[in-house]
Amino acid sequence: MEIFDNGDTICAISTPSGVGGIAVVRISGNDAIAIADRIWKGKSLAAAQTHTAHLGEIIDSTGNILDQAVATVFRAPRSFTGEDTVELSVHGSKWIQRETLNALIQQGARLAQAGEFTRRAFLSGRLDLAEAEAVADLIASSSRASHRNAINQMKGTFSRRLLELREKLIDLTSLLELELDFSEEDVEFASREKLRTTALDIRTEITRLAQSFRAGAAIKDGIPVAIVGPTNAGKSSLLNILLGEDRAIVSDIHGTTRDIIEDTTEIGDYLFRFMDTAGLRHTDDTVENMGIERSIAAASKASIIICVLDSTDTNPETTTEEILQHIGRADSDKHIILALNKTELTPTETSIPLPEGFAGATLLHLSAKTGQGIDSLNQTLTHIADEMTSHANGADDTLVSNARHAAALRASLPTLERVLQGLSDGLSGDLIAQDLRETLSHLASITGQITTTDILTTIFSRFCIGK
Amino acid sequence: MEIFDNGDTICAISTPSGVGGIAVVRISGNDAIAIADRIWKGKSLAAAQTHTAHLGEIIDSTGNILDQAVATVFRAPRSFTGEDTVELSVHGSKWIQRETLNALIQQGARLAQAGEFTRRAFLSGRLDLAEAEAVADLIASSSRASHRNAINQMKGTFSRRLLELREKLIDLTSLLELELDFSEEDVEFASREKLRTTALDIRTEITRLAQSFRAGAAIKDGIPVAIVGPTNAGKSSLLNILLGEDRAIVSDIHGTTRDIIEDTTEIGDYLFRFMDTAGLRHTDDTVENMGIERSIAAASKASIIICVLDSTDTNPETTTEEILQHIGRADSDKHIILALNKTELTPTETSIPLPEGFAGATLLHLSAKTGQGIDSLNQTLTHIADEMTSHANGADDTLVSNARHAAALRASLPTLERVLQGLSDGLSGDLIAQDLRETLSHLASITGQITTTDILTTIFSRFCIGK
Repeated sequence: MEIFDNGDTICAISTPSGVGGIAVVRISGNDAIAIADRIWKGKSLAAAQTHTAHLGEIIDSTGNILDQAVATVFRAPRSFTGEDTVELSVHGSKWIQRETLNALIQQGARLAQAGEFTRRAFLSGRLDLAEAEAVADLIASSSRASHRNAINQMKGTFSRRLLELREKLIDLTSLLELELDFSEEDVEFASREKLRTTALDIRTEITRLAQSFRAGAAIKDGIPVAIVGPTNAGKSSLLNILLGEDRAIVSDIHGTTRDIIEDTTEIGDYLFRFMDTAGLRHTDDTVENMGIERSIAAASKASIIICVLDSTDTNPETTTEEILQHIGRADSDKHIILALNKTELTPTETSIPLPEGFAGATLLHLSAKTGQGIDSLNQTLTHIADEMTSHANGADDTLVSNARHAAALRASLPTLERVLQGLSDGLSGDLIAQDLRETLSHLASITGQITTTDILTTIFSRFCIGK
Repeated sequence: MEIFDNGDTICAISTPSGVGGIAVVRISGNDAIAIADRIWKGKSLAAAQTHTAHLGEIIDSTGNILDQAVATVFRAPRSFTGEDTVELSVHGSKWIQRETLNALIQQGARLAQAGEFTRRAFLSGRLDLAEAEAVADLIASSSRASHRNAINQMKGTFSRRLLELREKLIDLTSLLELELDFSEEDVEFASREKLRTTALDIRTEITRLAQSFRAGAAIKDGIPVAIVGPTNAGKSSLLNILLGEDRAIVSDIHGTTRDIIEDTTEIGDYLFRFMDTAGLRHTDDTVENMGIERSIAAASKASIIICVLDSTDTNPETTTEEILQHIGRADSDKHIILALNKTELTPTETSIPLPEGFAGATLLHLSAKTGQGIDSLNQTLTHIADEMTSHANGADDTLVSNARHAAALRASLPTLERVLQGLSDGLSGDLIAQDLRETLSHLASITGQITTTDILTTIFSRFCIGK
């Protein structure tokens, strides 16, 4: 802990790296104001009130004027980190950014580690761990949906939900312990059946949260969409038109795409992660067959499958049925879109019979060449994403998008099962209370009531420097 | 002017583009505070004192909470632009940056043009034009020397120097006009000789400033260094070791480099712009000969020439004399470094006789392969740069680095010549005063006392958005 948490003063550029109009250098720690004052020419920052901004000059490590700047003082505990903080708004040249840090280091600050400001915010109790982790997700968000989820989590929606669950679990534990204390007197304080109902409610909620991770992760990292289909049906052309760029090589040669090409793009409120795959066909080419195997694997991991078919190919080498069997449908959450491509060549829209088991698939006619039908495809994609989200959402919009949180939620379920079993079997209260405490500790690890330095280090190393 | 200067409210991201811990959205104009308030949930910014920071929430264009943010209020005239300004410090995600701008635009702000904040600072009299232009140079600076020059200019060193010159010119004009008013009375107010001495001083100073542009521009854009020499002497290897990367293709084949490869790197306090050129040799290859012509042209434009020779080649196809004749030495400001390369193959350092006229060249032994001698080369380069700068510097470190300023200074010289001639020839005061006013107007165009919208548009379009 000593290298992180002794209140020593840290500094970093908090704005995006590069050159710009202004850049912000953040300084936080016990000596933040004193150190900033030593490189500052202007009104003494030590004499400045909290939340005030001051125009002055920064003195570099050689004693020369480095820049005209604005220093904003935030005094503990009313700052992001909870510590004394100074933010220097300097001109955004590479030179000034570098030299401001050099001057601060010369005066006794040290460069902040990745995420160290947010780590301090957590350690000072300004944010719990789930809220702190949401800061990184918030910064990485590039779509409305992922942004909404991150800001809800940062503002404590998920943490409050966990708190409710924990309170219920603590109530259960107290009731069982009370039962224990007075067990000799044969007084029944709460019916076991009532306790069991509460525990079942808790299990339902934890299960829902744990299951929402699939949708939450998809929304955060991009909803995985596999583009599959026979060779030369226009899968790569479709990828390019969806991404709005020439990402995949397109040719008339069957089997052009072998590696899986993956890229993300924002459609509506969502980020989608498209995977263009090798065309499915019978071939003796070893490399191509490896590509086909990968296509099938990609499809199995996707939430949405776009199966592209050539509407001009009346006698396809690989039948629609074969392809759909390839993709499989083990996971009922998977959405399938059958895209009949090349409408520019087939003016009359043809219909194809859907094989058994795929009746729920969406059928679309489109042209990856002219763009016809692409709007409908985009609408279908966002509609499916809306459904995924609302299905996984609880009453308060809580989606778990963090793998660590999902793992902790999943880990709490077996112990909760033992609680339920114990209540059914009439086990003694102290034994059940033991399992309840274990369930509680899993939930507590999410918000950081129980944590270790190693876990914190892992979590905050994912952050950018300066946050 | 109307689209720029009617005090309408502008907004932009002022921090570097990209994702980071925080980003700053700047809003300036008559309605800056009112518009910011409309997307702000927290303490009313309209009620906030100048130079105070406030924690609150930003509401997006759909009415949802977009982010937790800090708003800092700067009230006119105590802001960078001289107008009411709000700076919103938001989390630096792409989504939040974009949506904050969208929300502000929905509430009546418009996106700022490149440099528009600085333009407003100029129009409100917070900066003169030379100082405003220095802001762009300051942001672009990546070496100590260019930074120092830009900050001096931004802080008004150059403007003060111009002001002194203008005051002297105005004095001269008044004296001549006074002479005119009382000419009938035959009173001599100032001897023509004295006036001439003052005008000569002014000419000396303007000439020095105009001439300092060569050094000033070199320091700003990188001091041009041409690497020349016979084929296969190791020019490209030297470029790569100087740049610290594999920039140029290196091979044992004579004539590998044909295009001029150019890149900049910082050595000591200076930015150097190295040009690797085609090897000089007698060849029938047309493309190679075009490359050689370009080498000679590049050498003629460089401030420093590094002539790389193969120290193991005792009987070179192209003699040192031929190469040096190629380079020429018309410009006595040009510094020549003879670099005897491949010391790793010749343990004993050999000396070469310098041809007549090149006795002032610096002779260095180095190995572009092992790095031996590169430190000496770097020292020589920074030493030459120091000399260039101090030679061009005036008493107060003023180097002209802006082409527009240099052109205005040069344009003022012929009119000043006419003043001097007029004083010698005993021309009447009103005629001389006419030329003096023309000289003055050239100088006034630098600081912007005399300017047009077109000139301003050209100047500020060089800026980045958000500054």
